[in-house]
Amino acid sequence: MKVGIIGGSGYVGGELLRLLIQHPEMEVVTTTSRVYAGEYIFRIHPNLRGFTDLKFSPMNLDTLAKETDLTFVALPHGSSVKIVPKLVEIGQKVIDLGADFRLKDKEDYVKYYGWEHPTSGLLEEAAYGLPELNREEIKKAKIIAVPGCMSTSAILGLAPAIKEGIIEENRIVVDVKIGSSGAGAKPTRASHHPERFGGVRCYKPIGHRHIAEIEQELGKFTSNPISISFSPHSVNMVRGILSTIHTFSKKELETPHIWKTYRGMYGNEPFIRLVRDKKGLHRLPDPKNVIGTNFCDIGFEIDSHSNRLVIFSAIDNLTKGAASQAVQCLNITIGIDEETVLKTPSLHPA
Amino acid sequence: MKVGIIGGSGYVGGELLRLLIQHPEMEVVTTTSRVYAGEYIFRIHPNLRGFTDLKFSPMNLDTLAKETDLTFVALPHGSSVKIVPKLVEIGQKVIDLGADFRLKDKEDYVKYYGWEHPTSGLLEEAAYGLPELNREEIKKAKIIAVPGCMSTSAILGLAPAIKEGIIEENRIVVDVKIGSSGAGAKPTRASHHPERFGGVRCYKPIGHRHIAEIEQELGKFTSNPISISFSPHSVNMVRGILSTIHTFSKKELETPHIWKTYRGMYGNEPFIRLVRDKKGLHRLPDPKNVIGTNFCDIGFEIDSHSNRLVIFSAIDNLTKGAASQAVQCLNITIGIDEETVLKTPSLHPA
Amino acid sequence: MKVGIIGGSGYVGGELLRLLIQHPEMEVVTTTSRVYAGEYIFRIHPNLRGFTDLKFSPMNLDTLAKETDLTFVALPHGSSVKIVPKLVEIGQKVIDLGADFRLKDKEDYVKYYGWEHPTSGLLEEAAYGLPELNREEIKKAKIIAVPGCMSTSAILGLAPAIKEGIIEENRIVVDVKIGSSGAGAKPTRASHHPERFGGVRCYKPIGHRHIAEIEQELGKFTSNPISISFSPHSVNMVRGILSTIHTFSKKELETPHIWKTYRGMYGNEPFIRLVRDKKGLHRLPDPKNVIGTNFCDIGFEIDSHSNRLVIFSAIDNLTKGAASQAVQCLNITIGIDEETVLKTPSLHPA
Amino acid sequence: MKVGIIGGSGYVGGELLRLLIQHPEMEVVTTTSRVYAGEYIFRIHPNLRGFTDLKFSPMNLDTLAKETDLTFVALPHGSSVKIVPKLVEIGQKVIDLGADFRLKDKEDYVKYYGWEHPTSGLLEEAAYGLPELNREEIKKAKIIAVPGCMSTSAILGLAPAIKEGIIEENRIVVDVKIGSSGAGAKPTRASHHPERFGGVRCYKPIGHRHIAEIEQELGKFTSNPISISFSPHSVNMVRGILSTIHTFSKKELETPHIWKTYRGMYGNEPFIRLVRDKKGLHRLPDPKNVIGTNFCDIGFEIDSHSNRLVIFSAIDNLTKGAASQAVQCLNITIGIDEETVLKTPSLHPA
Repeated sequence: MKVGIIGGSGYVGGELLRLLIQHPEMEVVTTTSRVYAGEYIFRIHPNLRGFTDLKFSPMNLDTLAKETDLTFVALPHGSSVKIVPKLVEIGQKVIDLGADFRLKDKEDYVKYYGWEHPTSGLLEEAAYGLPELNREEIKKAKIIAVPGCMSTSAILGLAPAIKEGIIEENRIVVDVKIGSSGAGAKPTRASHHPERFGGVRCYKPIGHRHIAEIEQELGKFTSNPISISFSPHSVNMVRGILSTIHTFSKKELETPHIWKTYRGMYGNEPFIRLVRDKKGLHRLPDPKNVIGTNFCDIGFEIDSHSNRLVIFSAIDNLTKGAASQAVQCLNITIGIDEETVLKTPSLHPA
Repeated sequence: MKVGIIGGSGYVGGELLRLLIQHPEMEVVTTTSRVYAGEYIFRIHPNLRGFTDLKFSPMNLDTLAKETDLTFVALPHGSSVKIVPKLVEIGQKVIDLGADFRLKDKEDYVKYYGWEHPTSGLLEEAAYGLPELNREEIKKAKIIAVPGCMSTSAILGLAPAIKEGIIEENRIVVDVKIGSSGAGAKPTRASHHPERFGGVRCYKPIGHRHIAEIEQELGKFTSNPISISFSPHSVNMVRGILSTIHTFSKKELETPHIWKTYRGMYGNEPFIRLVRDKKGLHRLPDPKNVIGTNFCDIGFEIDSHSNRLVIFSAIDNLTKGAASQAVQCLNITIGIDEETVLKTPSLHPA
Repeated sequence: MKVGIIGGSGYVGGELLRLLIQHPEMEVVTTTSRVYAGEYIFRIHPNLRGFTDLKFSPMNLDTLAKETDLTFVALPHGSSVKIVPKLVEIGQKVIDLGADFRLKDKEDYVKYYGWEHPTSGLLEEAAYGLPELNREEIKKAKIIAVPGCMSTSAILGLAPAIKEGIIEENRIVVDVKIGSSGAGAKPTRASHHPERFGGVRCYKPIGHRHIAEIEQELGKFTSNPISISFSPHSVNMVRGILSTIHTFSKKELETPHIWKTYRGMYGNEPFIRLVRDKKGLHRLPDPKNVIGTNFCDIGFEIDSHSNRLVIFSAIDNLTKGAASQAVQCLNITIGIDEETVLKTPSLHPA
Repeated sequence: MKVGIIGGSGYVGGELLRLLIQHPEMEVVTTTSRVYAGEYIFRIHPNLRGFTDLKFSPMNLDTLAKETDLTFVALPHGSSVKIVPKLVEIGQKVIDLGADFRLKDKEDYVKYYGWEHPTSGLLEEAAYGLPELNREEIKKAKIIAVPGCMSTSAILGLAPAIKEGIIEENRIVVDVKIGSSGAGAKPTRASHHPERFGGVRCYKPIGHRHIAEIEQELGKFTSNPISISFSPHSVNMVRGILSTIHTFSKKELETPHIWKTYRGMYGNEPFIRLVRDKKGLHRLPDPKNVIGTNFCDIGFEIDSHSNRLVIFSAIDNLTKGAASQAVQCLNITIGIDEETVLKTPSLHPA
C-alpha cells in the first residue's frame, strides 16, 4: 500500500517514517516539508541514514491523489484543518496526528484553541483514534484523529475506574511529567538545553488543551460531570510521559477489585501492560520501559490513609502518544494484524 | 563558636561542612564518620579540596563535650535517637537532621517508622526546626529537629492556605518530584545511573514517612482533620524538589486574595520568594533556581475549571531541605543575623 | 535453533535476550543467573515484560548439553575462562562476550589482567569476533570471542588508515567518551547517579585492558610497531561510545583519498555507515544515532594545521559493542543472513 | 566602585551580575541589553530574584562615562571591537569578555575570524587576562581581554610542561568536552534539549578559533613552533570543560619531576588546585567539582606504554572560563585582594 506523509520533518513525522519504512505492507512514496523540501530525509532524521534515500518534497495534492491511498498528516494544530478536508474530497483516507479533528463539540475549538472550526461538519465523521476504546469507529472512519500524547496516557489510565464508577469524577488530578520531545523539533528558550536540563517546571498549570479531549472520551463512561485537574511538567528526559493520576474513591476499595476492573477492560489488549509488582525496582510504570514502543504501562495503588486510588500510566509521547498509535490505527483500518511492525520491546537500560 | 558534626560523610554532612567552613562565627573541630575515619574530608567531598585539611574522626563523646558547644547530627533515621539523648545529657545543644525527634506523638514512630521511641519524653523538648513557622521554639530548644526535605517544601507551600481555611483539608494532593541526592550517598540499584537517568518513577506512592510531620505541622493551623495525599517521584536531576500541590477550594478564589494570604505569612521572610510572573520562562517555581541556596520559592495558580488552587513549592533538598536550614536554625538559636552565610543566589544556568 | 545464555542478568545478557527473543530462528531455552535464579527475567529486564515468562535458572552444564546447540557466555572477565573449556568439551559452540579468549598472546593476560591463562591452548582456536575484519574465522571457530566495546569502536575506526599506511603508528590517540552502562549493572560509587550525572571523568587514563586487543588486531595491518594512547572518559549518558581518534599523518592527506580508503574496506559492510556530511546538525558520528543498533558510524576530518587525521567512530556499547555483534557472529556462524534481527534504525530523538 | 556591564542578558553577563552584586566593593549601576532593555534582570536571570530590582537599559556611552569607572563588555565576537575603542577614548578601563582584543597579531583576525581588525593599534595595549600568566600586564592595561573558556583550560594545563621543554610541541592533542552553556543563551537546533541530551558530538573538529590564542600564549614559553591539535566536543552537561591533553614526551618522564614542574608554576596560585589522588572517586580533575567557582583543577598521568604525558584541566566555562576570571582581573587591576568574592567551593553533589 502506498502512503504519503504531510509534515515529515518534525519528530512525529520522523517516527512515522521510521515505522512505515520497516512496515512490510507499506511504501512511503512522498514526504512533504515546507522548510526542508529538496533535502535528504536522513539529514533531519539521522537515524534513517542507510534506510532511505528519499528527499522531502513540497506538498502537492495531485501527487498524493494519484500515487497514494492514504495520507498521514503531522502538522501543527490549526494547520491540518486546512488540508484534511481537501484530502477527504479527493478520496484519501486520512490519519491526522494533530488536534484539529479530535473534538466533537465545535465550541471546544473556540474555548481551547481560540478559533472557529471551518469544517465542523467533518467532526462527526472523524474517529478518535484510541484503539483500546474506539476500535470499531477506527475501522470505518474516513478521518482518524490520533489522540494527544498526554490524553492517551490519561484516558487509558482512567477509563476503567470511571466506567466502574468508583472514583469521584470531579476531583481527578492528572499530574503529568513529560520529556522535551513533546514540545517539538523547533528550538525555543524553554527547550534550550541549559534551561531545560536538570530542572522540573510546570509549564501549563491550568487550561491545557488536552483537557477537552480527555473529558470528552471519559464522558462516554459516565453520566456524571467529569472535571480533570490537569497540570503537565517538563522534566529532564527526551521522551516519555508519566501521568500520576490521583483520584478519590467513592467507597472503600480492594486491590482484587481494581485488578479485575483493569483486566476486564484491557486483558486482551496487545499494547497495555498492567505493571504492579511486589518486588524489584520496576514495580510501577516508568516511561523508561516503554521508550520507542507502542505500549501503555498502567499500574495503581490504593491509599487508605487519604482515600485515594493512585493510577500510573506511562507511554512514549512520540510512539504510543503519536506515531505508533497512528500505525496501530492504520493496521486496524486496513484490516491487517494490529501488531504489525509494533510489537518490539524497549531497550534496557536506556 | 566550636561545633562538631556527627555523620559527616553523607551528602547532608558534606553540605553542612561547606556552609560551616565559610561561616564567619563557626569553627568545625570534629567531623565523625564510622566508615571514613582517618580519611581526608576532601576525598569524600571533593568540592572542599583547598578549603579544609581536616580528616574524619571516629565518634567520641568526650571530645564533643570538651571541645564543642553544639553538635550537628546527620545520621540515618533510627541512629540519632541513640546519640542525641547522650549529647543532651552532657549539655550539648543538638541540631539533628534526622527524623528521630521531629514527631510529637510517639505513636507515629510506631506507625511510620516501625519502632518504639526509647526516649519519647524528649520529643516535647525538641523544636521542629522550620524557622518560618517555629522561630520562637527554635530559639529556646535544646534539640532542634530539622524537618524532612519534602516536608519543608510541602508545609511551606500549604501553611498559608490551610491557615486561611480556603481549601478542603482532606483532599490535598502533594505530588513531589525529587532529585537523586535525596536518597543519600550510598549506591543502590535505584540510584544506579543507567537505571535512574532519563526516567521518572514514583518510588513510594502511599505511606511515605514525611506524611506524619506534614500533617503534624499543618494541623496547628486548623481544627479540621487533615489528610495529605503524598506521592514522591524520582526524576533525572541530582538536587531539587518541586512539590506540586493540588488542592480543592472551599469557595471561589480570587488571585489578589491568595497573594495577600501568602504575603501575609511570608512577606518578611528572608528565604521565601513568591514566584508568579506573567512573563518569561520562569513564571513559577523551578528547583533549578534554588539549587545550593536556602530559598523556598512558592507560587500558585487558580483553576476555575476544576475548582483547584495549585501551589508550587521548590527547594534544594540538601540545603533548605537539610543543611542550610540547619544553619538557619543555628543562626537563630545563637542569636546572630539569620542570613549569615546563607544569602547567596544559585547559578544560572546550571 | 536452541541456545542458552550463561550470565543473563547483566546488561549485556539482557540485550542478548532482547535480540534472541525476536530472532526468527532462535529459541532461548535457558538463561542462567547465580543471583537471580528462580526470578522472572522481566523483573530484572523490565523491557521484556510481555515478551517472555521465562525465569533465570542456576547453571547446569547437563541442561545446556542436552537442550542447546550453542551457548552465549556473558560473564565478568576471569569467569568465562572457567566455563568455556567445559562447554567446548561437551561439544557446544560458544560465543563468549567476555575478554577471556580475545587475546592470542597468553602473556597479555598476565600483563593486562593479572592472571595466567589456564587453557591458553584454546586461544588459537578462538576467533576474534569482529565480523568486518574476521568474517572467515568467525564462520569456522568453536569459540567466538566478541570484542570489547571500546575496542570495537577503535579498531573499526583505525583499520583502514593503518592498512593504508598513512598515519604514524606510534602516536595514535584514542580519546573515548562512554556511557554509564559500560560499567555494568552493579551499583558503585562511580555509577551512583548523583556522582555520575553532569560530570566528565577520565577513569583509566593509562593502561586500559582494551589496549591489548586493539594493538593485536591492528597489528595485522602493518609491520610497524603500534602504540595506542588510550584514555576513556565517563560522560553523562547511559549508552554509547564516541572514540575520537587523533592521528598524525605521514604525508599530506587529501579527502578523496581517505574516502576511498574507508569505502574500500567498508563499502559493502551492512553495519558500517560513513558519516561525513557538509550540512546539518549530524555531520559526524554521534552515538545518539546508533543507540540500540548494530551500526558503527565512522567519519573523519583532515587537519592541515596540525597535520592530523581525526577519525570519529560511534557505536552503542551494549549492541555493536557486545550483544548485537554477538548475534551478528551467530548469524555468520550458522550461515544465515547476517542482518537477521539486526537491521533496525535507532530512535530520533532519544 | 561603580561599574557597568554592556551585554548583560547572556549567560556570561548573568554570571558577572551574580558576582558583582555580591562583591563588597562594587556597585553595578547600569546593565545594558538591546533585546531586553526595560525588562527586570531577574526575568532573564531567575537566580537573581530577590537580589536586584535593576532593569536592563539600552546602551548609552554618556551614562557609562558619567556614572562608572570601569566597564565590562560581554558581547558576541565582532561586536566589542565597535565599542571598546570608544570606551577607551572616554577614559574607561575596559574588561572585555569577547575575543576582539585577545590576539596580538592582527592577521590572526583575518585567518580565524574572517575580518580585518579596525583598531589593531589597540591590540598591543590589551592584556591577555589570564592572571596566572599575565598578572603584571593585567595590573596596568587599559583593556583586559579575558581569555576564551577552552583557551583558559588548555593554556593553564599546558604552560608548565611547555616551559619545562619536556613535550613535543607539534603533537599536542587537546580533546575538549564542554557543556551546553558554552554555546550561549540563544536557542539553536544544536542546543535543543532533545538533540543535545544524551549525546556526544565533536562540533568543530578542526580550525577552532581558540587555537590562535592558545598558541599565542604558549608560544611565550618556547622558541619551538607550537601546533595545537584541538577538537571540542559537546557533552550532556550545562557547565564545565574538561580538557584532556595528550602530549608525547621528548624523554622519559618521572612523576616527581612533573609534580615539581606544576607546583613550581602554580604553587602559590589561589585558584589552581593540583588534583592527582591515589584513592577515591575523585583522583583526577572533573568539571563537576569546579562548577560555579574560579578554580582550575589540573592533574596528569604518565603513560610509559605510549610515551605520553596526559594532562587534565577542568574549569567552569562561565566562571573561570569567563565571568569570575574577569572579576579576578578586576580585583588585580584595582589592587584589592585577588580572592575577593571568588573563594567559594562548588556544591557536592550537583
